[in-house]
Amino acid sequence: MDVAKLSPRLLLGPGPSPVSPRILQALARPTLGHLDPQFLGILDEVNDGLRELFGTTNQTTFPVSGTGSAGMEAAMVNLLEPGDTAIVGVKGVFGTRLAEMARRLGAQVVEVEGEWGRPLDPERLIEAHNDHPGARLVALVHAETSTGVRQPLSAVGRHLRNSDTLFVVDAVTSLGGMEVGVDDVGIDVCYAGTQKCLGVPPGLAPITFSSRALDRIRNRESPVASWYLDVTLIAGYLGSERRYHHTAPINLIYALHEALAEVRDEGLGARFARHARVGGRLQEELVERGFGLFTQPPEARLPQLTAATLPDGREEGPLRARLLEDHGIEVGGGLGPGKGKLWRIGLMGHGARDSSVDRLLEAVDVLMEDV
Amino acid sequence: MDVAKLSPRLLLGPGPSPVSPRILQALARPTLGHLDPQFLGILDEVNDGLRELFGTTNQTTFPVSGTGSAGMEAAMVNLLEPGDTAIVGVKGVFGTRLAEMARRLGAQVVEVEGEWGRPLDPERLIEAHNDHPGARLVALVHAETSTGVRQPLSAVGRHLRNSDTLFVVDAVTSLGGMEVGVDDVGIDVCYAGTQKCLGVPPGLAPITFSSRALDRIRNRESPVASWYLDVTLIAGYLGSERRYHHTAPINLIYALHEALAEVRDEGLGARFARHARVGGRLQEELVERGFGLFTQPPEARLPQLTAATLPDGREEGPLRARLLEDHGIEVGGGLGPGKGKLWRIGLMGHGARDSSVDRLLEAVDVLMEDV
Repeated sequence: MDVAKLSPRLLLGPGPSPVSPRILQALARPTLGHLDPQFLGILDEVNDGLRELFGTTNQTTFPVSGTGSAGMEAAMVNLLEPGDTAIVGVKGVFGTRLAEMARRLGAQVVEVEGEWGRPLDPERLIEAHNDHPGARLVALVHAETSTGVRQPLSAVGRHLRNSDTLFVVDAVTSLGGMEVGVDDVGIDVCYAGTQKCLGVPPGLAPITFSSRALDRIRNRESPVASWYLDVTLIAGYLGSERRYHHTAPINLIYALHEALAEVRDEGLGARFARHARVGGRLQEELVERGFGLFTQPPEARLPQLTAATLPDGREEGPLRARLLEDHGIEVGGGLGPGKGKLWRIGLMGHGARDSSVDRLLEAVDVLMEDV
Repeated sequence: MDVAKLSPRLLLGPGPSPVSPRILQALARPTLGHLDPQFLGILDEVNDGLRELFGTTNQTTFPVSGTGSAGMEAAMVNLLEPGDTAIVGVKGVFGTRLAEMARRLGAQVVEVEGEWGRPLDPERLIEAHNDHPGARLVALVHAETSTGVRQPLSAVGRHLRNSDTLFVVDAVTSLGGMEVGVDDVGIDVCYAGTQKCLGVPPGLAPITFSSRALDRIRNRESPVASWYLDVTLIAGYLGSERRYHHTAPINLIYALHEALAEVRDEGLGARFARHARVGGRLQEELVERGFGLFTQPPEARLPQLTAATLPDGREEGPLRARLLEDHGIEVGGGLGPGKGKLWRIGLMGHGARDSSVDRLLEAVDVLMEDV
């Protein structure tokens, strides 16, 4: 196969999202060394831009050299020691994954389970914390990519502020598409991916650590199990010492730098409003066509990720394959209990525009007629 | 800063190496989804090409979604359990790092230490194994990027074949520049980086696991501490099930695919001969100019990475900074005991050519005159 001859797709799945020509161009700039002063300047600006997006003044804010799940693992592996208690909200694939990672690290996991497709009641999380006041952390997924649910964060953040328990939030599918508000909400560790609402090819996971989280890490009894993701070592490279740790993914960082310039040019408020408006329009138009919206209640629906059931009991798999092959449009299938029942439609980053909705609906109309 | 306005550099350090225009172009192709049949076809071809480079028929051969150190961690975290014994050859930074990772995973580490700048005597490693016959693994760095040493592997490989101890080899700086010979040597787990002799931007770590290694992993008593690097989970995505694990770094995989096409066009033998010839020429010319070659004996010198002391006790730091700023050429400084004493000059991948040597020597001649 020849990569120059691949058919392009309109990426309207759960990620990766479409990458703008401007970002692809930045990606292809000549590679620099990871200790080159020019590159370090770019990296400093990237970290500044990420602080703005996360809504934080945390010094320790940077892109992990791996995809979103590496960000998740960086959060858990730095904070948890064997025997620690971790309270994890589970209402989809990514909450399940958080719990699984915590268990592998030897933590006692308290799962607060909810129905897939609905947010967790913050009161239940607070109760779980009252039952386990010594828990090391509470972890929640802000935007569940598997179900399209937006999880409210602020009540839990307020509650944990007065405790020694850290608040970990997965913002993989929210960062760059909606407000996260790390400092306002009181989040201690927040991680994301670049291939969703930022429109950067996959391979980086922005993350931020509060000083409370760093204190906790300094007071660990056992070393962090992962050398690659040890935030204390990574901070030595990012900080004034510029101590070599590992070779950063230079060209992906160029792409992230360009994406942050796009964000600045557009303005955060305008960007969030664009995601909200376009996603809302898609959801309305789908309902008009007989699709069902999986996520309940309506105010919990993410605009950037719509989980929809198909009209008239149509089989999702064959239609999704034809959407890809005949129309060049990718949407995602369901995961877990949603498998075989749902389409997951992403309108993220560069893909969150009316022309995406138009192309998708045109194709859907053709597919639905053609039975 | 604007990434379009960065001054290009000739990358003759310990990596990243120069990326060819052909590979940069592939990198910037439109992103596809990680479950798109087109992308899965590309990934299958990448894994085939990696098998050829590694010299293996191992089914489980793929690029880890992280840089070379993530490959190192993937090897160690999958094989080791708390209480296991790991024998590690240490004669530079990367052997030290292997030992450190093994310790973090709760292993008892037996370090076979050697002088920096010299290969380890295989007999000492075999003796260490005879002293610890129940060791889980022996780990060696094939091409030590910190000292320019080529470590002989075959005697250790032959010895371990008749034992239950696994052989782990770091080929970060050898893969694509010299023969590794995974199956011939009897290596069980071998990992590399793409930003050295393959000339792909950093962010991927090719790795291969023998069936013996996979048996060991299946028989673990405790789960692999890392979810992100768990080879059993990753194999579910790579295998016929194509089960979603994490989002692969699509565009970097395009670049690796193109690099493997370059390798095939050139031929493995011709590629290795080119690295050997150009590196040999540089080393001769440096000696003529009064540089010293740090690595001993001469047959242990890697052609792709030359560790050189400067003539007449010149200070390496200021000259290296001027080489970068005035001449646009990056070389590396020393690490560990070599800090402040060495230049590490890489002639890797697209950079392993006479024109690189010419440009470097011209600049060196100017710098040395100009005192």
